Amino acid sequence: MIPEKMRASVLRGVGDVVVQERPVPEPGPREVLVRVTAVGTCGSDTHYYEHGRIGPFVVREPLVLGHEAAGVVVARGAEVSRHEPGQRVSIEPGVPCFVCAQCRAGRYNLCPDVRFFATPPVDGAFCEYVAVHEEFAYAVPDSMTDEAAALCEPLSVGVWACRKGGVGPGSRVLVTGAGPIGLVATQTARAFGASEVVVTDVNPRRLELASELGATGTVDVRESAIDFEPEVLLECSGAPRAAADAIRRVTRAGRVVLVGMGGDELPLPLSHVQNFEIEVTGTFRYANTWPTAIALAASGAVDLDRLVTHRFGLAGVEQALTASARDETAVKTVVRPQE
Amino acid sequence: MIPEKMRASVLRGVGDVVVQERPVPEPGPREVLVRVTAVGTCGSDTHYYEHGRIGPFVVREPLVLGHEAAGVVVARGAEVSRHEPGQRVSIEPGVPCFVCAQCRAGRYNLCPDVRFFATPPVDGAFCEYVAVHEEFAYAVPDSMTDEAAALCEPLSVGVWACRKGGVGPGSRVLVTGAGPIGLVATQTARAFGASEVVVTDVNPRRLELASELGATGTVDVRESAIDFEPEVLLECSGAPRAAADAIRRVTRAGRVVLVGMGGDELPLPLSHVQNFEIEVTGTFRYANTWPTAIALAASGAVDLDRLVTHRFGLAGVEQALTASARDETAVKTVVRPQE
Amino acid sequence: MIPEKMRASVLRGVGDVVVQERPVPEPGPREVLVRVTAVGTCGSDTHYYEHGRIGPFVVREPLVLGHEAAGVVVARGAEVSRHEPGQRVSIEPGVPCFVCAQCRAGRYNLCPDVRFFATPPVDGAFCEYVAVHEEFAYAVPDSMTDEAAALCEPLSVGVWACRKGGVGPGSRVLVTGAGPIGLVATQTARAFGASEVVVTDVNPRRLELASELGATGTVDVRESAIDFEPEVLLECSGAPRAAADAIRRVTRAGRVVLVGMGGDELPLPLSHVQNFEIEVTGTFRYANTWPTAIALAASGAVDLDRLVTHRFGLAGVEQALTASARDETAVKTVVRPQE
Amino acid sequence: MIPEKMRASVLRGVGDVVVQERPVPEPGPREVLVRVTAVGTCGSDTHYYEHGRIGPFVVREPLVLGHEAAGVVVARGAEVSRHEPGQRVSIEPGVPCFVCAQCRAGRYNLCPDVRFFATPPVDGAFCEYVAVHEEFAYAVPDSMTDEAAALCEPLSVGVWACRKGGVGPGSRVLVTGAGPIGLVATQTARAFGASEVVVTDVNPRRLELASELGATGTVDVRESAIDFEPEVLLECSGAPRAAADAIRRVTRAGRVVLVGMGGDELPLPLSHVQNFEIEVTGTFRYANTWPTAIALAASGAVDLDRLVTHRFGLAGVEQALTASARDETAVKTVVRPQE
Repeated sequence: MIPEKMRASVLRGVGDVVVQERPVPEPGPREVLVRVTAVGTCGSDTHYYEHGRIGPFVVREPLVLGHEAAGVVVARGAEVSRHEPGQRVSIEPGVPCFVCAQCRAGRYNLCPDVRFFATPPVDGAFCEYVAVHEEFAYAVPDSMTDEAAALCEPLSVGVWACRKGGVGPGSRVLVTGAGPIGLVATQTARAFGASEVVVTDVNPRRLELASELGATGTVDVRESAIDFEPEVLLECSGAPRAAADAIRRVTRAGRVVLVGMGGDELPLPLSHVQNFEIEVTGTFRYANTWPTAIALAASGAVDLDRLVTHRFGLAGVEQALTASARDETAVKTVVRPQE
Repeated sequence: MIPEKMRASVLRGVGDVVVQERPVPEPGPREVLVRVTAVGTCGSDTHYYEHGRIGPFVVREPLVLGHEAAGVVVARGAEVSRHEPGQRVSIEPGVPCFVCAQCRAGRYNLCPDVRFFATPPVDGAFCEYVAVHEEFAYAVPDSMTDEAAALCEPLSVGVWACRKGGVGPGSRVLVTGAGPIGLVATQTARAFGASEVVVTDVNPRRLELASELGATGTVDVRESAIDFEPEVLLECSGAPRAAADAIRRVTRAGRVVLVGMGGDELPLPLSHVQNFEIEVTGTFRYANTWPTAIALAASGAVDLDRLVTHRFGLAGVEQALTASARDETAVKTVVRPQE
Repeated sequence: MIPEKMRASVLRGVGDVVVQERPVPEPGPREVLVRVTAVGTCGSDTHYYEHGRIGPFVVREPLVLGHEAAGVVVARGAEVSRHEPGQRVSIEPGVPCFVCAQCRAGRYNLCPDVRFFATPPVDGAFCEYVAVHEEFAYAVPDSMTDEAAALCEPLSVGVWACRKGGVGPGSRVLVTGAGPIGLVATQTARAFGASEVVVTDVNPRRLELASELGATGTVDVRESAIDFEPEVLLECSGAPRAAADAIRRVTRAGRVVLVGMGGDELPLPLSHVQNFEIEVTGTFRYANTWPTAIALAASGAVDLDRLVTHRFGLAGVEQALTASARDETAVKTVVRPQE
Repeated sequence: MIPEKMRASVLRGVGDVVVQERPVPEPGPREVLVRVTAVGTCGSDTHYYEHGRIGPFVVREPLVLGHEAAGVVVARGAEVSRHEPGQRVSIEPGVPCFVCAQCRAGRYNLCPDVRFFATPPVDGAFCEYVAVHEEFAYAVPDSMTDEAAALCEPLSVGVWACRKGGVGPGSRVLVTGAGPIGLVATQTARAFGASEVVVTDVNPRRLELASELGATGTVDVRESAIDFEPEVLLECSGAPRAAADAIRRVTRAGRVVLVGMGGDELPLPLSHVQNFEIEVTGTFRYANTWPTAIALAASGAVDLDRLVTHRFGLAGVEQALTASARDETAVKTVVRPQE
């Protein structure tokens, strides 16, 4: 039986998160209703919590955060043909308009009218139930944990970065930054066949974890210079000056993917980009990544469970959002709304 | 009859160019000897003349400048099979090593061991005769002037930029800077099928010329803002701040090609590049462009002769190198070594 | 005022077409209602008329034919934001499901659930009014005739073929078959910058027309062999043996696009395809072509009006469908429902 | 000390192979002299032995067969800068002209003037020493056996096929034919990240080996139909009818790579290729594959040693060439010239 009310963690203002009762959403004709089992906490959630906005997106009404979500299908809209009730699913949290030029060209992540979880005014998944388009809920095998199913979202970021960067068998890759995205990118690059993946950070603990997860080399940039000429740079630090320095290391015809956010302008080393014809691009979310992400996680090529260091119930969302700031051992924090 | 000696314009030091007698080069086994008829003057020639160096390339020995060259085949090495004597040819001025990883991947412009005309210590074409690999001399039709044949070199820069930028039928293109390269890029973009090509500069005369050569719009950036959302930006101004501003205009999934040189760092607008997944790259010379360049010039799709504003003999090289600084009507200056 | 009833040409069975009265369609929330001004006749329309089916698509209920359509917007659904009434539009006749894997990858022409005009059980445009998704009606400039607006549909076939074939500046292209699609492909290849476009057929009149429309060479294959080594083959004849022969002419790393339909199996010359690494593909309709098609037609780069040889009202649909069989001067026949 | 004479296995005519004494080759200026340690036997070697020709290549003079070779550098030409004596290397057996249009475009495998081991009139590697361009000898790590180093040649065929087919993480691949190339292609597809690789053959032993090497499914086509809709078909059987049947299984926007040779014409299912826009291409050898092949073999992602079933000295070349015909357990036979 599906209840009429559910508990949801609601951001009411900067630094103000409370659990409230809300109506369980009614699935639309092509939506499934999902009982949420696990939701990863992302830096963007923390940013909304701390600042009440990200660029042009301002929290004006109470907002449910959380967009890295998995759960179990419990009901289906009238026109749904996928996912029997009971099916465990990983959720792709952004549903585009489908018909604009970007959507029709296959770049639905660039749709100007996308509705994305936990981006004002669209609520996210730190709650007991969410409704989602049947084609944006993906069945996961029983072998995959709820948490791994949720973390197919950050894994999608890594898959998208590796695709944009043209990572493939034999690639030599530099990953700058060993936060959750850097660690996912490292694993994804290895799963895409990269033969060398060197990771940089200033946190030795994270560099050690990078090595455990497949990095072939690590550099603590407080202590050593990067002595590696990558074909592909996956920039996950969000530090513009570090990014610029790393770009100077990239070899001829190399590719740079700017994944990390931070800073308004990145001082691009112009003559290096020209003389070596480096291709530089940024990523904005992802498109058409879930089947690959699930395949990588299901086969064990990428280990998502290993990233989870802290778990909280809905009442602990505030702790989840601030874990990284309080505990340097934190990597990925997960909210489990049913607990 | 081929003489033993020839006249050459030699750069002996900063601001010091003289005509000297030199031996006519002996073509190697796969080289043709070309009597030079026309050589365009490039900003890099002027830069060597004024500064004695470009980045790591320093003029330590007397150097013949000039790399935009055309002429007539007058002799052939022992193993040459192309080009009967009398054949008029356009010269591709950089011959790579052919066997390194870049060459074998088809990116011979990135060959670290390329020998390029007028780049220390390799002499250029401001002289009566040059020897060049038979496969880097391209037959031109009789309908093409010597000057157009020479200017297939800057046209190749435009072709390469349009290829890198993915310019095609229906593209909306912004060209920043209406110098010789900007004007060539404008024409090339139109020849590639672009339906809109907007050109910016601060020189009304050049903007007028851009319009005559096919620009569908022009903007004098001293007076107006750019009100256009291009899919492709061909940055030919070499002004980093202007480049950064132009990048902010590029639409979703757009492409930026940094052709103009100037400044060490370009302040890349990070969140725009990310949110719109803009692809940014630079060009270094060109590869495999001559057949296309000749086809475009021969068909009239691109008008190279229209760019030539000044002509000099070998004795006038110094005037040719300084024409732009002295005469704001100058666009492209040509040296004609036989006159 | 929009009437309640309209006239429509209805195919009731093989060889049985009549004008009937039908209700004017009610536009859906995101649809516009278009008063149809011109509809091209396609070989597939004739095939349904003569055989009652095309492969798995069988005419079981009375069907309105015609899918190359243009008209004027006369009403709009509740959620429509484009196209004021009075706007002249070209219609893209297939609306996909938008959310399947093919659609989301940008290949909406391969959507298994596409609804396409004049494909059972979906009615077409040989009638006075049609309703169409606002994003599948494209504004055309006043300079473009109704007939050219309608023929943006076959032009889209040509644009798609040239994209698949990688036609670009300097390309050497062979077009086999000078029917309406071959003639459109010829013009499109030229508009994409191809420097040589050789066309083959067995009808001298059509070859002459091909020359007038931009072919740089023609071959009457009853009289001469093809003496040309194309980089790109656009196969528009639908004759499998001729197609196989043409494929043997394609040069190293060349591309073959199979546009013409006909025959079940094409005898692919295996060792040629392998030794020269030829890429062979087929086209199925088109995706994301209308803006380019309109740009090409509006600029005059492609002349669609020149293809129209016969015109009929709704009462003349049967004549339109059989014109090619009866009159060898026929190229493209247009139905004008308002006349 | 390098001797003046060496032993070589020479094909004198159909079915006539003898060991003869020949001069040790003198390395050219950029060549290294390699003492051959292992050479794989290929179907093409057997074909020359049995028929004296392959298509246009006819054995007119005595010919040394063998082109899958590895060895140790023992001397270097005057201009060589790579590979100290003692370096173990894998040999890429085809050296192109480097300067033709195909070479300069990065498609050196399509060079019309390539000189390829064991292709008349160029001798191969069933002998004690060969000379090879320094850039076509690749250092291998000590962990790699001589035989694996030699089999980087067939592995390159697999790498090239997977690249042409766009195999990547999550791909669903069908490999038709479980001979040496099919088995290599299976492993390569898995190493490229394919999540499903189904292999077909009529030999249960080979299908079992395919499973051991990573196939996720196998089909004995004598007994069962293929019940799988691949995105990529790697056709390694060389049986045209089987190839055509397999092509009909390929899903929308899928890719077909024709690797297996055999038969003159392949009956291409035209409407399937069109309706699903299948891309079909063939492979001719490979280009720029060795670094990737060595990386895959060195990391253990591909197991080449597992393929070797028989070993012979130079005196056993005839046995090596006929092993497959005589012994159905044979997969890959290796000649070891020093034994």
